[in-house]
Amino acid sequence: MVIAVDASGGDYAPQEIVKGAVQAAREHNLELILLGDRATIEVLLAQEGSAAGIEVVDAPQAITCHEQPVQAVRGKPDSSIVKGIKLVRDGAASAFVSAGNTGAVLAAAYLYLKNVEGIERPALGVVIPVSDGSPFLLIDGGANADCRPGYLLQFARLGNIFARLHLGVQSPRIGLLNNGEEEVKGSSLTIEAHKLLRESGLNFTGNIEGQDILKGRIDVLVTDGFTGNILLKSLEGFGDFLKGVIGSALPAGAMQEAAMSSGNGGLGSMLRRMDFSEYGGSCMLGVNGNVIVSHGRSKAKAMRNAVRFAGQAAGSGLVDAIRRELSVI
Amino acid sequence: MVIAVDASGGDYAPQEIVKGAVQAAREHNLELILLGDRATIEVLLAQEGSAAGIEVVDAPQAITCHEQPVQAVRGKPDSSIVKGIKLVRDGAASAFVSAGNTGAVLAAAYLYLKNVEGIERPALGVVIPVSDGSPFLLIDGGANADCRPGYLLQFARLGNIFARLHLGVQSPRIGLLNNGEEEVKGSSLTIEAHKLLRESGLNFTGNIEGQDILKGRIDVLVTDGFTGNILLKSLEGFGDFLKGVIGSALPAGAMQEAAMSSGNGGLGSMLRRMDFSEYGGSCMLGVNGNVIVSHGRSKAKAMRNAVRFAGQAAGSGLVDAIRRELSVI
Repeated sequence: MVIAVDASGGDYAPQEIVKGAVQAAREHNLELILLGDRATIEVLLAQEGSAAGIEVVDAPQAITCHEQPVQAVRGKPDSSIVKGIKLVRDGAASAFVSAGNTGAVLAAAYLYLKNVEGIERPALGVVIPVSDGSPFLLIDGGANADCRPGYLLQFARLGNIFARLHLGVQSPRIGLLNNGEEEVKGSSLTIEAHKLLRESGLNFTGNIEGQDILKGRIDVLVTDGFTGNILLKSLEGFGDFLKGVIGSALPAGAMQEAAMSSGNGGLGSMLRRMDFSEYGGSCMLGVNGNVIVSHGRSKAKAMRNAVRFAGQAAGSGLVDAIRRELSVI
Repeated sequence: MVIAVDASGGDYAPQEIVKGAVQAAREHNLELILLGDRATIEVLLAQEGSAAGIEVVDAPQAITCHEQPVQAVRGKPDSSIVKGIKLVRDGAASAFVSAGNTGAVLAAAYLYLKNVEGIERPALGVVIPVSDGSPFLLIDGGANADCRPGYLLQFARLGNIFARLHLGVQSPRIGLLNNGEEEVKGSSLTIEAHKLLRESGLNFTGNIEGQDILKGRIDVLVTDGFTGNILLKSLEGFGDFLKGVIGSALPAGAMQEAAMSSGNGGLGSMLRRMDFSEYGGSCMLGVNGNVIVSHGRSKAKAMRNAVRFAGQAAGSGLVDAIRRELSVI
């Protein structure tokens, strides 16, 4: 299986990206196509030792993280993002992974891979850990800031398939993020979406409030991309804040002891679970191809996990399952 | 100064409410009017010792936390919430504090106190702690799930006055919660609100993303009530989650040591800062009267802090300042 990786995207590109991708390829028997500046990548690959099963595709144009996505994608056909997405479209790669400009990756996927029939707006699915160790999928993590009720129903259907294939849940419990548990509470968007979900045939368990997100009650948490993005980034900021405070507050011995505790209830395991680099990426759901968006702060560990996840997504037949199940609705 | 307190509202009413309110009244030289079942309150007051400066107003009707707010308020004129708000309207109390049905408190305030001229939608202001110890005001914490751009500008103006009077900031830095820093990013709501804020004459410092909320960059964080509510409750859930995990993961000695550490960077101080009961209440801003909504889980400590805060709000002339400054715009 071939995974295309954007070696130019992210704060620590290309060094950490190449390092992590090569590690994942070795550990999980994947082939790689690395996209970026050919000469630089070849120097880095030489440092990593054997480059068997690794191809380099030169992509001389760079899309920076502040560029307007659609303009950048249209104006830079030789960028790593556009070339990587086209490898997936053309069947030369089974998945594309990028830690670069998220908007540009989404725009390129939307333009060149197209939506699955029945899906008006592809969305970002993000796996989130919870206290008892069983993660859930948040969808939409930020692809669509303005949503209609019908989009949220489609996010739920996408999340339902993802949770079956990747979280090992037979009948995923779908919750709707809301500012109240009762069905009459909410914004005009969530009140309408609640009705659609209730009649959807999905295992819809109702509204979920902020304080209940991490309690393990759901397998898929449906929300609009604006709220989802705020929530994700807030949890990340909270994790950073926490690590800083814990590091400065605890006696060194206790910190070490806590960090090494390995049970699911352990502080160390909690800090790991709050660490985005353990998960490595969000999955763009609803386009005709596997596209993994990794965090801009990704170092080698995060990239290794993102590439491994890309391999799992491609191997599970996720896109085919989405096409099969959603086109008949 | 007289503070009216809803002795019937909240999970731990009336015992903890009465206990906390009486403590605050003694410590801060406040007079109280307690609203609820007269006989029960009088028994509780007898347990607390001297009841000098405390009046009881019988309010035989109860509004439960699941009732539809407007119907409840219209249908129960003898409830503690309606009677308490009317005490403020009639000048018999300087503020009203309730841990009961938030929607009903908001509805009663809206109906009987009316908006300040120039404010279309009153909002909930919630003081949030940050890592360096200087808190900020989140507005709207949940009063308005559906917002227009103009409402967010009004929230900013309300928050600006609150931060000057209660957070001790001369020129409050106003941030707009958004899913990207750049002004072109956001939902249609936040993109429009950004333009209004930029031209408002306020000290608008731009968009704030989720990961930067707790970094001490702003004094007022403006958002719609849906997102604000999700954010607040998520932070609360995260705090609960954290306390549970820390409690189970750390050796008892380390936990005690950490909990007793008193510096601003200490774990104990962080846990206290994440504890809603330290702050006690949200402030309804934009109505003609001081109304404090306390958490439904409030015990005596939270109620003590809420009543103290009600006294401070009334003493600061917050409502007069809002009326004076916003009616001339």
